[in-house]
Amino acid sequence: MGENGFEKWVLTVTAQTPTNIAVIKYWGKRDETLILPINDSISVTLDPSHLCTTTTVAVSPSFEQDRMWLNDKEISLSGGRYQSVLREIRSRATDFEDKEKNIKISKKDWEKLHLHIASYNNFPTAAGLASSAAGLACFVFALAKLMNVKEDESKLSAIARQGSGSACRSLFGGFAKWIMGKDEDGSDSVAVQLVDEKHWDDLVIVIAVVCSRQKETSSTSGMRESVETSLLLQHRAKEVVPKRIKQMEEAIANRDFASFTQLTCADSNQFHAVCLDTCPPIFYMNDTSHRIISCVEKWNRSEESPQVAYTFDAGPNAVMIARDRKAAAQLLQRLLFYFPPNSDIDLNSYIIGDKSILQDAGIQGKNDIEALPTPPEMKDAQKYRGDVSYFICTRPGRGPVVISDVSQSLLNPETGLPK
Amino acid sequence: MGENGFEKWVLTVTAQTPTNIAVIKYWGKRDETLILPINDSISVTLDPSHLCTTTTVAVSPSFEQDRMWLNDKEISLSGGRYQSVLREIRSRATDFEDKEKNIKISKKDWEKLHLHIASYNNFPTAAGLASSAAGLACFVFALAKLMNVKEDESKLSAIARQGSGSACRSLFGGFAKWIMGKDEDGSDSVAVQLVDEKHWDDLVIVIAVVCSRQKETSSTSGMRESVETSLLLQHRAKEVVPKRIKQMEEAIANRDFASFTQLTCADSNQFHAVCLDTCPPIFYMNDTSHRIISCVEKWNRSEESPQVAYTFDAGPNAVMIARDRKAAAQLLQRLLFYFPPNSDIDLNSYIIGDKSILQDAGIQGKNDIEALPTPPEMKDAQKYRGDVSYFICTRPGRGPVVISDVSQSLLNPETGLPK
Repeated sequence: MGENGFEKWVLTVTAQTPTNIAVIKYWGKRDETLILPINDSISVTLDPSHLCTTTTVAVSPSFEQDRMWLNDKEISLSGGRYQSVLREIRSRATDFEDKEKNIKISKKDWEKLHLHIASYNNFPTAAGLASSAAGLACFVFALAKLMNVKEDESKLSAIARQGSGSACRSLFGGFAKWIMGKDEDGSDSVAVQLVDEKHWDDLVIVIAVVCSRQKETSSTSGMRESVETSLLLQHRAKEVVPKRIKQMEEAIANRDFASFTQLTCADSNQFHAVCLDTCPPIFYMNDTSHRIISCVEKWNRSEESPQVAYTFDAGPNAVMIARDRKAAAQLLQRLLFYFPPNSDIDLNSYIIGDKSILQDAGIQGKNDIEALPTPPEMKDAQKYRGDVSYFICTRPGRGPVVISDVSQSLLNPETGLPK
Repeated sequence: MGENGFEKWVLTVTAQTPTNIAVIKYWGKRDETLILPINDSISVTLDPSHLCTTTTVAVSPSFEQDRMWLNDKEISLSGGRYQSVLREIRSRATDFEDKEKNIKISKKDWEKLHLHIASYNNFPTAAGLASSAAGLACFVFALAKLMNVKEDESKLSAIARQGSGSACRSLFGGFAKWIMGKDEDGSDSVAVQLVDEKHWDDLVIVIAVVCSRQKETSSTSGMRESVETSLLLQHRAKEVVPKRIKQMEEAIANRDFASFTQLTCADSNQFHAVCLDTCPPIFYMNDTSHRIISCVEKWNRSEESPQVAYTFDAGPNAVMIARDRKAAAQLLQRLLFYFPPNSDIDLNSYIIGDKSILQDAGIQGKNDIEALPTPPEMKDAQKYRGDVSYFICTRPGRGPVVISDVSQSLLNPETGLPK
């Protein structure tokens, strides 16, 4: 730092990190502080064009304290999780030099310099779509780039893990596996990439954001209660998941959609079974979630081979993975038949993300939804208008990237304050 | 028979048999034909004044075939289950003589004589309240009395079991245990009484019959699918239930309501967890069931010790067991606060059974329901009007009895046809 110590330079890095959805679920910690899980898990990374966190981190000798803004609102960084992540990243910082801007930061300077961090989710934080996974991963990734941390994504994943367990899987595109590890210090509890997003690029993902009148148990306290009280959880972690992880890795490697669907659905249901076996029981799925499952199950069984896999995290929203665009269009027709929008909602805000699937489904306007025929596999045609808030169409996507376009920075490059 | 062979006599027996609700659940058969379970189960018998089956069985040399009427409608007796029960009972028939009426039936005559059977449930058959348990138990009990079968209730329970598994527990009042047994022929898979209905007579039972838009999976096919596909069911049956059975027997023997509640709720939730772990998943509870659980759980946790246990069978209805009348009255206040009746329903048909609990709760009319204060343990006061069809107030009750009052016979004593 030296010669620059009293100058007003601000150094920034902006990064974008995807969210991810587990297809073999993480539920239960063996160490609450280090966030070490009781089983491996596997996830698919979602396309950041539709669901991602953007984070700008800045450092300047003029900053007087570490500060953070999430979705334009200042939040406290004093929580244990942010603090351990910051400590881990700072300890791995290396010398940095930008000759052009005449900025030089030595390894030990990073201990003293304060940071500004601004983060923004391009989707509703409260929608239960793993915003904390994308957020913590982006926090770690952006800071690592800023501080010139030389370690690879897997090493960074072990840091992100300490902020939010599932965040470690957001450091990779395509499909990622979080290896539970054995070491007491958690150093081998890291994520690795199984395949990148190009490996299985037929897949299309449709998310139903489900209306709910219930406040859900946080996943942190929910999994703690499951570990303490469920008599089925350990059996799941020790006997069931290890086999499923192997089978799922094979299914992904071979693009075997039938096995992928069987494993994904069974594992989601088993995770929710363990929640129900918790005392007091935890209900994340509601009647709408159940109806979506019935709709997909009936359709899959009426076809020669499964068309769609479903999975639910710690909330009522359904994440559905269709084998290809054709299946996704047919899925959307079914979903819109059962869950048409309320009259005050326009189609454009009812289906967001990749709207081209809507074209494939032959739906140009709300009239087309009302004209949809009863799916042939269904006998009853009861509709549940208004029970879904909106749908997101997306696909598997890439891992974190640095965004060099300064216009996308969330912090003013002069002041280091939110734009 | 001999000298009476061509006479027109009709011999009848009328019996009344209670229904029962498992507090440690039966889910899964190891033998589908003999109906042998994969674990022991324990149930409480419900007071037959509120929930029971009445069955009249008749024999006459004038009957040309076996016939049966259920709730005034003739039904077929050709099903495998009725046939095996009839065969088992007939094989145990003994000589019968009524000197007054000059009727004499020898052991071997029973093979040739035809039967008329009329059965009636004093509660809605479709309400998911174990009507088949009471029905089959009554079928067996009444026929055993008619045919002068000398065996005790446990021996009879093994016959009832072959008609409907949980029916075997309806041959006893109070609390009954169905021992799974080991023998391949099922002869040791019988029910026994743990304690009679006087042992723990503080208990009060409130049943919420929940509205449902879903057609439920039958328990027969549901448990078959769980046995075939759930990876948690065997662990439950082998590792979890045996311990719970012992603990539940102790809790009942000691009238330990705290342990009773913990075990009852946990076992109900685990049974539904196994249903969810089935492929495709089975959902018996709906959002209303979940809300009832939340209401009871919150209240129990706000008190020094639990006030109410809950359990759900293969449907959305809640069976709640209150520690005493005071707790039952407070429970009813809470339930009526959250689930007030629709305006077109009168109080008298909204709460049925033992209406004295309603008096204890200070509710004389529908105005009193609307005036109920928010329960102190609850923050939100959202109401779910119309989500419960009606409530039944009852208590643990006695086992089967023969009804000697001929006016209660369901068959005409002259013709042997339904009255």
